[in-house]
Amino acid sequence: MIKRIDHIGVAVKDLNKAISLYRDVLGFELLEIEEVESQGVRVAKFDINGVHIEFLEPTSQDSPIYKYIEKKGEGLHHIAYFTDDIDGELDRLKENGIQLINQQPVEGSSNTRIAFIHPKSSIVLTELVSKGE
Amino acid sequence: MIKRIDHIGVAVKDLNKAISLYRDVLGFELLEIEEVESQGVRVAKFDINGVHIEFLEPTSQDSPIYKYIEKKGEGLHHIAYFTDDIDGELDRLKENGIQLINQQPVEGSSNTRIAFIHPKSSIVLTELVSKGE
Repeated sequence: MIKRIDHIGVAVKDLNKAISLYRDVLGFELLEIEEVESQGVRVAKFDINGVHIEFLEPTSQDSPIYKYIEKKGEGLHHIAYFTDDIDGELDRLKENGIQLINQQPVEGSSNTRIAFIHPKSSIVLTELVSKGE
Repeated sequence: MIKRIDHIGVAVKDLNKAISLYRDVLGFELLEIEEVESQGVRVAKFDINGVHIEFLEPTSQDSPIYKYIEKKGEGLHHIAYFTDDIDGELDRLKENGIQLINQQPVEGSSNTRIAFIHPKSSIVLTELVSKGE
């Protein structure tokens, strides 16, 4: 079962501009800035009442976020939902004919297991997140 | 001060398809379906742990959502944040040179006062929501 929104991902060209606005003007709590080499992004994570907003700046032209910005421009990129049972959710989605990007969970950051639903099925690029084992 | 995410708006071509997936497969709670004539949209509101997800289907070609889908395709459209003091927030944003779509709050649905920040400043189309008086 899906319990809550875990985070919202936003594609940006300039992470420092995003930080200036969301931390310094809007007053959101900046949790951390980290570089995720495997995804070719630098990430600034904010917290707003338990939901994280993650700004994603591409660090190379091979990054999926670079390609997204080229095609669609900066802006909202995906929503991630937290579930206790990512395996069960994926099975249920498959049984219902939902198209998945990841048929099985893959390793996410901070000891999580994640899987993406294809936006052809979910309209919005959607990530499921579960705690690692 | 911004307290929490109020809702996330998603532009869709087919509201029934969105309802089938999010209610029937993902198990989200469907709160209501309403038509907002002034915006030219039919809206399905879901709740997920206190945050609403609103799917917006255009009902005419004059709808901003119709134009958005024509230009960018279906998907994540805006984030709305709840604040107790929308007037104070707007003043502070103006003092910081943030570009606003609404200089003053306008009437929203369900007895709310709302104002949009221009995505040129906020990267994402951003709405502030406050309780009406």
